[in-house]
Amino acid sequence: MAEPTDLRADAARNRTRIVEAARDLFRTRGIDVPMSTIARRAGVGVATLFRRFPSREALVAEVFAEQRAHCEALLRKAVADPDPWNGFRRLLEFMCAEQIEDRGFTEAFLASFATGSAHWQQRVVAESAFDTLVRRAQDSGRLRRDFAVSDLVMLMMANAGLRNAPPEHARDLSRRLLDYLLQSFGTEGDAPLSPASPLGLADHLTAHSGSRRAAAGG
Amino acid sequence: MAEPTDLRADAARNRTRIVEAARDLFRTRGIDVPMSTIARRAGVGVATLFRRFPSREALVAEVFAEQRAHCEALLRKAVADPDPWNGFRRLLEFMCAEQIEDRGFTEAFLASFATGSAHWQQRVVAESAFDTLVRRAQDSGRLRRDFAVSDLVMLMMANAGLRNAPPEHARDLSRRLLDYLLQSFGTEGDAPLSPASPLGLADHLTAHSGSRRAAAGG
Repeated sequence: MAEPTDLRADAARNRTRIVEAARDLFRTRGIDVPMSTIARRAGVGVATLFRRFPSREALVAEVFAEQRAHCEALLRKAVADPDPWNGFRRLLEFMCAEQIEDRGFTEAFLASFATGSAHWQQRVVAESAFDTLVRRAQDSGRLRRDFAVSDLVMLMMANAGLRNAPPEHARDLSRRLLDYLLQSFGTEGDAPLSPASPLGLADHLTAHSGSRRAAAGG
Repeated sequence: MAEPTDLRADAARNRTRIVEAARDLFRTRGIDVPMSTIARRAGVGVATLFRRFPSREALVAEVFAEQRAHCEALLRKAVADPDPWNGFRRLLEFMCAEQIEDRGFTEAFLASFATGSAHWQQRVVAESAFDTLVRRAQDSGRLRRDFAVSDLVMLMMANAGLRNAPPEHARDLSRRLLDYLLQSFGTEGDAPLSPASPLGLADHLTAHSGSRRAAAGG
């Protein structure tokens, strides 16, 4: 018979295997991958998976805990950057690169912007930090006045489209897109832009869920 | 017993119904929609559908014949525009808007770039026309020298990402993205861009097919 210590060791091993399988699957297939697929990849039963992680949200939170902390630290650092434009630019570079590398991360990050999410408080903090970042960069004269927060939604959705490129090209395309956009963000154009969209950060998620539903229903 | 004239009228009616059903489904769901779904929507049997259109390619060609002609006329007009930058800009505006409005059209247009396609000759003509368009706009001094044809692939993939927005916002986001990009395309930046991708126009299609396969296999 196994002793309590062995049981605990077993449980810890299972937990690690589940988190590693989920991290891998979230990265390549997004956070909506079936729980049964995660259990199969981890080599555990579905019952064991649900004993360790009673909800998908709990598993997502565990998998992305480190990256989320990194992202929040980066947002704080960006806001505190003595050069506001530099802080703004580097945050966008980080987010675009992360979105290309890891499909699940962006979804997890944006999921925290959904109303009613357990991370709703973090959402409020992040939104207000991003507002501050934009305002500071605009006040410094480096970011154009007509840049809107919804332009970040535009960028994230456009960048997501580049994930359809062969993996070895997606990162280069993403860098190039951001280079072009940063040049426009950083210069007051002589021609006025089309009006900014009223979309907020939370809409990015809603939109993506909608498209997933449509695809599943097709 | 039906007379030959009635038979011909029946056949013509069926053909029209099939083309209308396919146009609607291609627009909302893309050109990979199952042939059986098209038959059902048209209210005809699958056998009838295949009698009228022995292959998907034949149906796609029929559905987009008018738009394709329009697009080719637009490309010719763009190349002939006395203001090369204006021709370049208007072609990009048209392609982005069309891609947002009609999912099937872009797929059909890009499918003609696939090697071995029946439209391969049109592909060669279109590629060479686009090269000319870019070179003329560069020679006029309005389009930056480091603009690459693969930047069009980048734009089309990024713009496709915006289709995930709620339909009432997708077009606004697309206009705004293109406004920003045109400002960068139209000004030699003081900072060098990341290297252009080696992707060609045909790769856009390959990439999308790949992602569809991955989604189907998931």
